[in-house]
Amino acid sequence: MRHLTRFADLGADGVERLIGRALSFKSGCIPDALRGRILILLFLAPSLRTRVSFQVAMARAGGSTIVLEAGGGMWPLETRVGVVMDQDRIEHIEEALGTLSRYGDALAVRVFAALESDALDLADPFLNRIRAGAGIPVISMESAAEHPCQGLADAMTIREHHPDSRQLPVLLRWVPHVKPLPKAVPNSFLLTAAALGCRITVSAPLGFELPASVIGAARTLAAARGGGVTESADPDCGLEGQQVLYIKSWGPSGDPGKPPPSGWHPDWRIGSDWLERTPAQALLLHCLPLRRNVEIEEAALRNPRCRIFDQAENRIYVQQAALEWLWESGT
Amino acid sequence: MRHLTRFADLGADGVERLIGRALSFKSGCIPDALRGRILILLFLAPSLRTRVSFQVAMARAGGSTIVLEAGGGMWPLETRVGVVMDQDRIEHIEEALGTLSRYGDALAVRVFAALESDALDLADPFLNRIRAGAGIPVISMESAAEHPCQGLADAMTIREHHPDSRQLPVLLRWVPHVKPLPKAVPNSFLLTAAALGCRITVSAPLGFELPASVIGAARTLAAARGGGVTESADPDCGLEGQQVLYIKSWGPSGDPGKPPPSGWHPDWRIGSDWLERTPAQALLLHCLPLRRNVEIEEAALRNPRCRIFDQAENRIYVQQAALEWLWESGT
Amino acid sequence: MRHLTRFADLGADGVERLIGRALSFKSGCIPDALRGRILILLFLAPSLRTRVSFQVAMARAGGSTIVLEAGGGMWPLETRVGVVMDQDRIEHIEEALGTLSRYGDALAVRVFAALESDALDLADPFLNRIRAGAGIPVISMESAAEHPCQGLADAMTIREHHPDSRQLPVLLRWVPHVKPLPKAVPNSFLLTAAALGCRITVSAPLGFELPASVIGAARTLAAARGGGVTESADPDCGLEGQQVLYIKSWGPSGDPGKPPPSGWHPDWRIGSDWLERTPAQALLLHCLPLRRNVEIEEAALRNPRCRIFDQAENRIYVQQAALEWLWESGT
Repeated sequence: MRHLTRFADLGADGVERLIGRALSFKSGCIPDALRGRILILLFLAPSLRTRVSFQVAMARAGGSTIVLEAGGGMWPLETRVGVVMDQDRIEHIEEALGTLSRYGDALAVRVFAALESDALDLADPFLNRIRAGAGIPVISMESAAEHPCQGLADAMTIREHHPDSRQLPVLLRWVPHVKPLPKAVPNSFLLTAAALGCRITVSAPLGFELPASVIGAARTLAAARGGGVTESADPDCGLEGQQVLYIKSWGPSGDPGKPPPSGWHPDWRIGSDWLERTPAQALLLHCLPLRRNVEIEEAALRNPRCRIFDQAENRIYVQQAALEWLWESGT
Repeated sequence: MRHLTRFADLGADGVERLIGRALSFKSGCIPDALRGRILILLFLAPSLRTRVSFQVAMARAGGSTIVLEAGGGMWPLETRVGVVMDQDRIEHIEEALGTLSRYGDALAVRVFAALESDALDLADPFLNRIRAGAGIPVISMESAAEHPCQGLADAMTIREHHPDSRQLPVLLRWVPHVKPLPKAVPNSFLLTAAALGCRITVSAPLGFELPASVIGAARTLAAARGGGVTESADPDCGLEGQQVLYIKSWGPSGDPGKPPPSGWHPDWRIGSDWLERTPAQALLLHCLPLRRNVEIEEAALRNPRCRIFDQAENRIYVQQAALEWLWESGT
Repeated sequence: MRHLTRFADLGADGVERLIGRALSFKSGCIPDALRGRILILLFLAPSLRTRVSFQVAMARAGGSTIVLEAGGGMWPLETRVGVVMDQDRIEHIEEALGTLSRYGDALAVRVFAALESDALDLADPFLNRIRAGAGIPVISMESAAEHPCQGLADAMTIREHHPDSRQLPVLLRWVPHVKPLPKAVPNSFLLTAAALGCRITVSAPLGFELPASVIGAARTLAAARGGGVTESADPDCGLEGQQVLYIKSWGPSGDPGKPPPSGWHPDWRIGSDWLERTPAQALLLHCLPLRRNVEIEEAALRNPRCRIFDQAENRIYVQQAALEWLWESGT
């Protein structure tokens, strides 16, 4: 039985294959494997794009979705092992998973980072618990460690503009925010862009480095396809040569819930003239949601090179490809 | 690209055409234009009839709906232009609209009146913002200014009983309530009934007049088809000659959030014997929800001439007709 | 017009017939009567299994569901007759029912027990109000008195292991909980197992007897098929001879909201070795949700004879059979 909760479930070849399928779906093909299937969406954290794009992915291909929200018509779930359930939680996640596994053809789950430590978030204990306990394929709608469907949509958006993305100069640029955000999206973008063979620069203030294990894995992936990964603490790092500008905020290193040592770096906000300093075809990407005039001045969003809605749309097609991949394995 | 958020989008000819289509759908035809389509319902205010009737309209014709509620699994949206988003709103409506426009074939929106002034509500700033920002057809599920699908359902209900509604005597009668309500429904009823050429009397206490611009537009519409619009402050106004009795509460004129100058006029409540003073075939209509024994004594609701559930049912068919009209234009 | 809100709607023959249909659906047949139908799910109490299993039942057979939750995007409903609706409830249930009856092909309702008295809960005033006021078939998703779809799923699970269930020794065993629970599930299990002709022992502490009228009805049903119903206050009652062990908590007799005279009987909790004292093929059943280590030690749940997920899965098929039965009557 296949799951898709992390990059390693696909590997570089899997990413290429799914992007290929996703492109064919965008051009009008309909995946047959989704017809008549039931996908259960379990949200333990809120959502807009993810919720709608999964429903659209299924509906357009003749499948159904059932949306469940913790706290919204469903009771909160107990997750501890061996606990005496004499408090307010009335169902254990093991029984919930056992039940849902009889009802759906796959389970899509969103669970957010604890933001206590990078190590804990990378271990992804809650999602891995679900993955182990479910009797049906599990697909991540973002977890503490990764957001693989976002990574696929981002990679597909790059691929639409660069059929050969090997050695493509890509900047993953930290931006300020009002609170520490999880690292799932930058982790997934980094791994997926590395799998495309891009030459990636990760630019973030000191103290905001991405986890060393993710950087290391991305380096290995990129190197195998002629790319590479460089880290920098220069906010303008190599801007004049970049073809893809991926902006995203995330929390400080190590212990991401703590206030950063040197404040929130409002000077790292991206000005509206930023795109003018990049090559004429360079793309501006962001996974959304986005804090206008905190992360980036809103005028930059109106630049036609800003392809944030392409990224959002591509979620539909990569998720169709991912579900096809989950279900073609015979479950 | 077509939108349907106000009477002017259809005009009198459009109303006639949609009622004709709606009647054919009620008699068993299925609109082909809805098959395989995805309609996104965005609720910024609660709903029962609207939510269900749109889902039924789509489901019966082979389409899908995706329901989104502000605050229900989705984060609250920022709507101000140029704001520095450093507070609690984590997504701007422009990005939300840009995203949803890639996901759905049309966007249905419910947003309620601010009730600060008639002028502000008639300007309908929030809905018009959505209409301008969406890249897909927008259909109103009630806004500050109008409720066009309710108006269409009401007109269809009249038409079912009166194939020729020109000069039909219609009373739009204010009733008391426990709080000031928006004027969207009476505005839409008045405009739509005027488009049918009815001879409408609007009866409300002094200080509860409908906006002069809406009265004026309705007068022009009605006159073109042999009807007219008269205002009255007499609670029993012409009761013995009316064929349609549309009862509805709304807030005071001008500044509808303020307590009215002369109280809530509980004496305007409609007694259970009211229908006995009207012609034998006169219909009693109300858009629902309804405050029993505040607006009207509940015994009157059991009179077979009370057609409130026909109005509710007709929402299905007029909405199918409206969606067909939106989508037949080639979007 | 048919409804299914209580055992008496089906009777013993109806139970047998629906289980037969449900077994054929589990083996791959698809009920034709659900295609293109719209089922409205109205939740006045939260749910996991019921919500998902009804959606799955419809989706797999080509039907649609519309989910409504009191308080979730819908306003709270007034239920009192003759009330002056000048408080916070903005719609009366009669108008809500009249409306929904125009929109759906059937109405599924969940409403919980008041827990004020067994007599009141057995009278099921709220569900019977809905049943009387709806113009379409009503199916219970659990009410104050009964949970007929759970009873059918439980009976189907027994039938899967025992093609002839007449005189089958079945233990319905009370277990402790942190609060008094409704008796709908044990009532329905008892009636349905009795209809299968089982020889049922109901084992509960003194003061936790099930309602005499339900016991009496079950005795009559069981006797007609060679079975019987015995009551006991011995926690180990006849364990060595039982083939089905149905565990469930419920509140005290008579006035179920009151604390029980002799505490919550934590000693009635079922230990992990309990199954070892039963015949080798005896099944462990529970309707879920379940309080681990309060009702039963969690190790027992991992025993392959624990068939709680079969019960949950069978909800799909018995509900398909129930809906087919509702709709085949010509509504």
